[in-house]
Amino acid sequence: MDVSEFDLIDSCFAPLSKDYEEAYGLKNDAALISEHPDSSTVVTMDTLIAGVHFFNSDPADDIARKCLRVNLSDLAAMGAKPTAYTLSMAYSDDLNAPWVKSFVRGLDADQQEFSIRLIGGDTVKTHGPLTITITCFGSVPRHRCLKRNTATPGQDIWVSGTLGDSAAGLQILKGEVSFDNQELRDVLVHRYQVPMPRIGLGICLLNDNISNTAMDVSDGLLADLSHITKASKVGATVLEQKLPYSNALKALFSKNETLKMVELAVTGGDDYELLFTADKLYRKKINDLARKLSLKISCIGSINSDKGVSLIEENGNHIHLSKMGWKHF
Amino acid sequence: MDVSEFDLIDSCFAPLSKDYEEAYGLKNDAALISEHPDSSTVVTMDTLIAGVHFFNSDPADDIARKCLRVNLSDLAAMGAKPTAYTLSMAYSDDLNAPWVKSFVRGLDADQQEFSIRLIGGDTVKTHGPLTITITCFGSVPRHRCLKRNTATPGQDIWVSGTLGDSAAGLQILKGEVSFDNQELRDVLVHRYQVPMPRIGLGICLLNDNISNTAMDVSDGLLADLSHITKASKVGATVLEQKLPYSNALKALFSKNETLKMVELAVTGGDDYELLFTADKLYRKKINDLARKLSLKISCIGSINSDKGVSLIEENGNHIHLSKMGWKHF
Repeated sequence: MDVSEFDLIDSCFAPLSKDYEEAYGLKNDAALISEHPDSSTVVTMDTLIAGVHFFNSDPADDIARKCLRVNLSDLAAMGAKPTAYTLSMAYSDDLNAPWVKSFVRGLDADQQEFSIRLIGGDTVKTHGPLTITITCFGSVPRHRCLKRNTATPGQDIWVSGTLGDSAAGLQILKGEVSFDNQELRDVLVHRYQVPMPRIGLGICLLNDNISNTAMDVSDGLLADLSHITKASKVGATVLEQKLPYSNALKALFSKNETLKMVELAVTGGDDYELLFTADKLYRKKINDLARKLSLKISCIGSINSDKGVSLIEENGNHIHLSKMGWKHF
Repeated sequence: MDVSEFDLIDSCFAPLSKDYEEAYGLKNDAALISEHPDSSTVVTMDTLIAGVHFFNSDPADDIARKCLRVNLSDLAAMGAKPTAYTLSMAYSDDLNAPWVKSFVRGLDADQQEFSIRLIGGDTVKTHGPLTITITCFGSVPRHRCLKRNTATPGQDIWVSGTLGDSAAGLQILKGEVSFDNQELRDVLVHRYQVPMPRIGLGICLLNDNISNTAMDVSDGLLADLSHITKASKVGATVLEQKLPYSNALKALFSKNETLKMVELAVTGGDDYELLFTADKLYRKKINDLARKLSLKISCIGSINSDKGVSLIEENGNHIHLSKMGWKHF
């Protein structure tokens, strides 16, 4: 290991805090957040572990960006504008300078992309796997945010982007499926390695009063939708034919593998798309927003006064995913 | 393992957030901090790992409290009043319910003691050692805090409590030294396992304008003092005969082991006492404060315009700790 803790903080991480005066160049015991008096600070925290949440062999800059982005996705689900983050890295003896440089390059790239700054953290040695914890901060109008317990019967259910790509990418990386089309293969793998938090959408949903209810899809569409229905004490119906699939995912599965594709889309997880509900009168507004953000946003079903979440085929039949080995329900 | 992730968050951790409305019972993607408009939020983050920062065999409630308290000590060093924290726990398959209950009991006890609340976090499985990261939040007057780069020549150097106890406790636990006096042995071990953050002192130093410059002693007195002198571009002299030793530490060492005791006190680390500088005119105020807080506060030396940190014997001789295998300088 050719990176001392001194180097790690002073040479590698401190430059990432340079535009944030109250981080004191990471030389103090802590940093200050001086939030605008009309705002609240949103706080979220996620830990990612080598061999669990990413592969040791993944590019270091992609690992850095994934660690940031799963946190940024939580901020998006609250309708927050990202502002800053702290990072704790538990690393083992085999950490080397090129890896760290690539890791810092990944953080730096996403700092630019999402206008955030590193303001503090910790570095420690571990005899276990590389373990990265990020606490991410965002800003919302004072005391306001998107929640999970505010869905009401009659509302539409919407989801951003496409589903199942990340889960397919993971299956490809694990060698569980193969995909001859190198270009489309890379699209799916990239969706797993570097998810895209839907920050702009979350901010617009909250600030334009389009929705009160959102979360990001990390456990899988139906599992996450069930978090909303349980918290809101409502039910939900999802229409299979409305689910958004990427061309890459459609190309991966043959015609007689449609059910496999559906399963991946609704249970695969790691999508980091925004799932939200909205009154029907906002349909035009949401479609306008999709155009403005150049982001596909699909109406995939509706909230009802039942319990639980149903997935329904075009012909009206229920799809019973439990039979397909899906364990969340 | 008989604790599912569901139980861990909903049954064990959620009750710790009950008095903090904007944590949403840990059911949302994130929590809100709505800081008073006249205040700034202080953020600090520390990771502790089994086998590195605590022993696997340590009582779970003590582990919980140590994880919180090393963070609270950072807040004390900023002069902040603690308010809330997020916790991420990476745990392995051998986690069991009694351990978790004890861990939660430890958190709960310190929540009461320091008036803080759990507001969010993460739980993940690891194939490595138990790894606990806490991000802790405090409150300071807007844009104000104690720093490291504001010491000036002529100022006194002060330290709270006693030094070396925690390092001695660690040596006892590792079997490197033995101590027949069970009661005093327990005092030293407890100082290692459950440090005492000097919250009240930090708040008074900042709010009463007694000091601008403080940090907590975690790497060892001289190493931490050198962080202050480097950041402030000054030097420091520490008088050996002024160093504060506990009765337990004095009992551990025989008369001809004084140098060993000194070494432990100035290089041992993990003291979590507050080290600060103040103008001479505040001596009475600081002694009054010590009485008010029922806390020993010792003037141990002074800041000068040289470079580096010197440790001086009563006869005026320099003590060269480098010869004693001390590697920080």
